[in-house]
Amino acid sequence: MRYEEYTIEGRNAVTEAFRSGKTIDKLYVLDGCHDGAVNTIKSLARKQDTIVTYVTKERLDQMSSTGKHQGVIAQAAAYEYARVEDILEAARQKGEDPFLFMLDELEDPHNLGAIIRTANLCGAHGVIIPKRRAVGLTATVVKASAGAVNYTAVAKVTNLAKTMEELKKEGIWFVCADMEGEVMYRQNLTGPVGLVIGNEGSGVSRLVKEKCDYIASIPMKGNIDSLNASVAAGVLAYEIVRQRLAQ
Amino acid sequence: MRYEEYTIEGRNAVTEAFRSGKTIDKLYVLDGCHDGAVNTIKSLARKQDTIVTYVTKERLDQMSSTGKHQGVIAQAAAYEYARVEDILEAARQKGEDPFLFMLDELEDPHNLGAIIRTANLCGAHGVIIPKRRAVGLTATVVKASAGAVNYTAVAKVTNLAKTMEELKKEGIWFVCADMEGEVMYRQNLTGPVGLVIGNEGSGVSRLVKEKCDYIASIPMKGNIDSLNASVAAGVLAYEIVRQRLAQ
Repeated sequence: MRYEEYTIEGRNAVTEAFRSGKTIDKLYVLDGCHDGAVNTIKSLARKQDTIVTYVTKERLDQMSSTGKHQGVIAQAAAYEYARVEDILEAARQKGEDPFLFMLDELEDPHNLGAIIRTANLCGAHGVIIPKRRAVGLTATVVKASAGAVNYTAVAKVTNLAKTMEELKKEGIWFVCADMEGEVMYRQNLTGPVGLVIGNEGSGVSRLVKEKCDYIASIPMKGNIDSLNASVAAGVLAYEIVRQRLAQ
Repeated sequence: MRYEEYTIEGRNAVTEAFRSGKTIDKLYVLDGCHDGAVNTIKSLARKQDTIVTYVTKERLDQMSSTGKHQGVIAQAAAYEYARVEDILEAARQKGEDPFLFMLDELEDPHNLGAIIRTANLCGAHGVIIPKRRAVGLTATVVKASAGAVNYTAVAKVTNLAKTMEELKKEGIWFVCADMEGEVMYRQNLTGPVGLVIGNEGSGVSRLVKEKCDYIASIPMKGNIDSLNASVAAGVLAYEIVRQRLAQ
């Protein structure tokens, strides 16, 4: 397991962090702020014996890395990355075919956060990201995930292509999105599946693409090249959900 | 029609702006930058007799409102908002049932940009946004749209609920996303349709929701409340695309 220090900003994200049972070392609250949402957070903090410190808006702004703290910033000791095995175990425990996201060198923290959020809501068992050349779980990502990082396992691996090889031995097949592929509505996307999403600018890298079993295309009628990466991930993920539900 | 001054930042967005035939008043390029993408932009600028000014990185950083200019910033005289009638006319010209997005007080420029991008690619005829309490077409939005604002009409209206009433007389019905609704896969989403997307925090406002003919839900299996607004818009838009293609 790997650990990384991080802060959690914004009311929803902080509330979710407490509710999920995550250990919060310190909670910073805007001095004089007494509305309902903030009072809820303070009582959650008391229950967990978290130290609460009241600070000025200037101090919070200074500490904030997202610029959108909404009067609360929590400091968690560490974010615990999951192992790939934890993701498979989560699927086993639910008695479901594994469904995971594999993100190939995603750069934008808003996209990573939005995708972890989608993974949580579409019933995926986890998200795999590479250690290098990709954004990790920064405060912006945690906020953009709307708390989903507390529930959905995120594993960091050294080599995506190698991890894909190992997961294929477990019966998982991989699909990536590309204009060249067959339209997703006509493909069978059921069964144990890994959904591969590429970099915002350059798409899925060659080595990872070669390991994909299927290439699915999202129908495109417009004038520009591609959907936003987190939107494409959501559209494909929900086509998988639709096909699973129809079974 | 309304006009609003704006700048276009980043290589893709600037290239698309030139290619779409938009009038660019001025182009600022990072001095000493001669790679392929920038040379393409410079030759597009020459063809349109756009004044090219070479500036330092510090100057570009100062001018940039997105912080991601990639060495090029274009200044367009104005962005021309479309009228709602232009959106209906676009559908008529293509001989298609109208398909439009209606965004109820969206705040995040990344979300607005990503949704215009989705609207362009899923074959929608336009996007309607309110004049107040909502983000407009800022430089960040234009960049996040990856150039889609040059192709997809964006209309700004004073009162969304009133515009919905008028569009209903044209035979358009409206669907919004909400957890209470019936699962989208089981609803008939074909025909002339307006897809209503709510605010990031508070969802669709009461007055607008009351005007919606249908409420569709996206299946949610996870622990958190909602998808990112642009992801939800994409998922619903592509369910509409799937049903239209299946006809």
